[in-house]
Amino acid sequence: MIILRLLFIILSGVYMKITDIIEKKKTKQELTKEEIKFFIDGIMNGSIEDYQTSALLMAVYFNGMTINETTYLTKYMVESGEILDLSDISDNIIDKHSTGGVGDKITLIFLPLAAAAGLYTAKLSGRGLGHTGGTIDKLESIPGFKTDLSIEEFKNKVKEHKTAIAAQTLSLAPADGKLYALRDVTSTVDIIPLIASSVVSKKIASGANHIILDVKYGSGAFIKTAKEAQHLSEIMVEIGKRLNRNICAVISSMNQPLGRAVGNSVEIQEVIEFLKGNMEPDLKEITYTLVHKAFEKTGMFKTKAEAYQYLDELITSGKALNKFKEIIESQNGDSSVIDDYTKLPQASIKYEVKANKDGFVKNIDALKIAKACKNLGAGRDKKSDPIDYSAGIYLTQKYSEPVKKGETIAVLYTNKQDAIKDAQILVQEAFEIEDKEPHNISLIYKIIN
Amino acid sequence: MIILRLLFIILSGVYMKITDIIEKKKTKQELTKEEIKFFIDGIMNGSIEDYQTSALLMAVYFNGMTINETTYLTKYMVESGEILDLSDISDNIIDKHSTGGVGDKITLIFLPLAAAAGLYTAKLSGRGLGHTGGTIDKLESIPGFKTDLSIEEFKNKVKEHKTAIAAQTLSLAPADGKLYALRDVTSTVDIIPLIASSVVSKKIASGANHIILDVKYGSGAFIKTAKEAQHLSEIMVEIGKRLNRNICAVISSMNQPLGRAVGNSVEIQEVIEFLKGNMEPDLKEITYTLVHKAFEKTGMFKTKAEAYQYLDELITSGKALNKFKEIIESQNGDSSVIDDYTKLPQASIKYEVKANKDGFVKNIDALKIAKACKNLGAGRDKKSDPIDYSAGIYLTQKYSEPVKKGETIAVLYTNKQDAIKDAQILVQEAFEIEDKEPHNISLIYKIIN
Repeated sequence: MIILRLLFIILSGVYMKITDIIEKKKTKQELTKEEIKFFIDGIMNGSIEDYQTSALLMAVYFNGMTINETTYLTKYMVESGEILDLSDISDNIIDKHSTGGVGDKITLIFLPLAAAAGLYTAKLSGRGLGHTGGTIDKLESIPGFKTDLSIEEFKNKVKEHKTAIAAQTLSLAPADGKLYALRDVTSTVDIIPLIASSVVSKKIASGANHIILDVKYGSGAFIKTAKEAQHLSEIMVEIGKRLNRNICAVISSMNQPLGRAVGNSVEIQEVIEFLKGNMEPDLKEITYTLVHKAFEKTGMFKTKAEAYQYLDELITSGKALNKFKEIIESQNGDSSVIDDYTKLPQASIKYEVKANKDGFVKNIDALKIAKACKNLGAGRDKKSDPIDYSAGIYLTQKYSEPVKKGETIAVLYTNKQDAIKDAQILVQEAFEIEDKEPHNISLIYKIIN
Repeated sequence: MIILRLLFIILSGVYMKITDIIEKKKTKQELTKEEIKFFIDGIMNGSIEDYQTSALLMAVYFNGMTINETTYLTKYMVESGEILDLSDISDNIIDKHSTGGVGDKITLIFLPLAAAAGLYTAKLSGRGLGHTGGTIDKLESIPGFKTDLSIEEFKNKVKEHKTAIAAQTLSLAPADGKLYALRDVTSTVDIIPLIASSVVSKKIASGANHIILDVKYGSGAFIKTAKEAQHLSEIMVEIGKRLNRNICAVISSMNQPLGRAVGNSVEIQEVIEFLKGNMEPDLKEITYTLVHKAFEKTGMFKTKAEAYQYLDELITSGKALNKFKEIIESQNGDSSVIDDYTKLPQASIKYEVKANKDGFVKNIDALKIAKACKNLGAGRDKKSDPIDYSAGIYLTQKYSEPVKKGETIAVLYTNKQDAIKDAQILVQEAFEIEDKEPHNISLIYKIIN
């Protein structure tokens, strides 16, 4: 029976043709497990040409993928490369992943809080492309901080300190990497099942068994609506169920930047301030919710109130800040930055942007702030581009706060004098000021388990 | 003003990005003239990658193209290569083109008839891929027949004999060639606006000003329904109007093979028989209709009755047959085949397929006959494959004719003994025999001017 089945699989592989697979998807038929394996194998061994892959991806844009197809796609992308094994550290390893936003320093608050609470978290992170740097870039703005860890170093640090964060140098889910490179140049990035399998495949390959996803929507995120974010989240959680990973997704708005700092070293400073107890409400709302989900996954605390009280204690006692110091030192960083922010990279120019009318801040467009930040030097287009760690923006006024005409609403940090004019215009455009004080809003839209 | 406009065009070209063009088509926006030129230029100069082209083609499958887009696509495909100039021969040059069918030898009857009637026809033809050979292959089954003509030879022959037929060796509409090669391997062949621009661009580049299209639908054609064929025809005729070419399309059924012979030399024999006056009704219906359209275009004959009577006279007087003899001789062929069919390639094996029941022929599936023909050696997969000119099938019984169980319904011609069994099964399956005599049907569905 096994031989017969093997023979069947071999024969069906031999007789499979990528053009038939494209045709099936084009005519909205469900692809089989074997066809998806054939596709991923073909991408990896080069037997399927890029022009065939891109035709298939565009057909997926129009006809979608079923949850079966998306699950198999994820599975075979995971199996296309190495899979990290962290089971010798603990059965409860947490990974926290954000789909990306503006001023999103949540990972850097989440890790010391969770570790101070005794949870194991292992965080592999890609170097960011876009308007501001990624988490790795932000950490690297701390002098000496080392993120290029070997697997052994990474695992040893997690064992010893409960957490570590490393640049993803391993070849995790390489089929996803190939697909993503092609999607980027064929206008096929915005395809929900492909986004879902891309995120989940990398997380599964990273070895964690509990995965907390921070899913953003809005002007500063690549997903624009709450409905799409929910759809994406539901798919990711379902793939997790089918591939034996415990995934939950917290969906929140990214229409406005998170916190007040956007950039690299300015965000590190805001992280330290948070851990010292100066918690921006939006950062607190998201981080506490995510850590609470991690507590739930691992069986800690019955109620939200207990969990939140415990987190408050970790902050006020200094335990969370100490953990952050421990992480910095464990990864060769200069932990004196915690008490002396001037040891972080400093911009030569500080420029204050003023309000052009009286009123209340009704909205701060995240995308415009991000674009301004990139103009100032905080982001990159290509992975090899240099990044100015000191460049960034600090929002002195935020949502619902009163402003007066001529009063400072934001400070620009840069080393590029000629970038200021455009950045200033963008920031002023980003601020929507109106007469009436707006209602309080909750950032969190929904949690999908 | 002209300089400003030029500057605008150059600048828009510089700032155009293929990913933006893909995104526009993906979201069902109409592409501009400049964007389509940018696309075709990019295909030709290699600045657009095949994987980007195939993504765009798949988006066109789902979102279509407007008549404006299709017209510009055609125009720039024409301009991507050489354009034949036949204006020194006549202002009324006819080109007749079939979208391809089984047993389709109409071109070989059309050319001598039209030339005998005094019309100029210049026919460039590609070497066929598929179940049977193309028109060029059929002609080459006549010993000595030369189709590799230089442009000068081709034009001189048209001047002297009113017609010539040459293998398309020139690089006409090369952008279409590149697109087609890609469509073939990305499951994007069946896209009506792309088929339309492909056909029309090659015909315009071939230099004729009157283009008569023989558009087939049915099991033996690549277009399956009359409705699709009509849609395709309307687009092609409209492109002609917009690009100053006089195009008409005759739409007919290709559910059953045309005539009785399917193959290469067997079809030549049937052409000669037709010109001798033994006219199969279906061949006559299509050919006369097409020549009549050519008469209309060039202002000959007021009524269909007059035109048909004249065509009958060209047959009975032997003028059409003489013209065919003249064509063969002009292109170095052995014209004695007209009186001695044994001078055509002969198959070593003749095999008679018998009816498996009594009744009337209700249908002969064209696709199955074509597949059987290919099995016997009459077709090719790659352009470099050899072809067996003698292989083919002769249908001794056709639509509506009575058959008796055990009586011969078709004769197979081949040199491959081991191909007979499968071919015989296919032919028997192709024949649908029922008790009742079916009604007479007209092949022609519609004519679009």
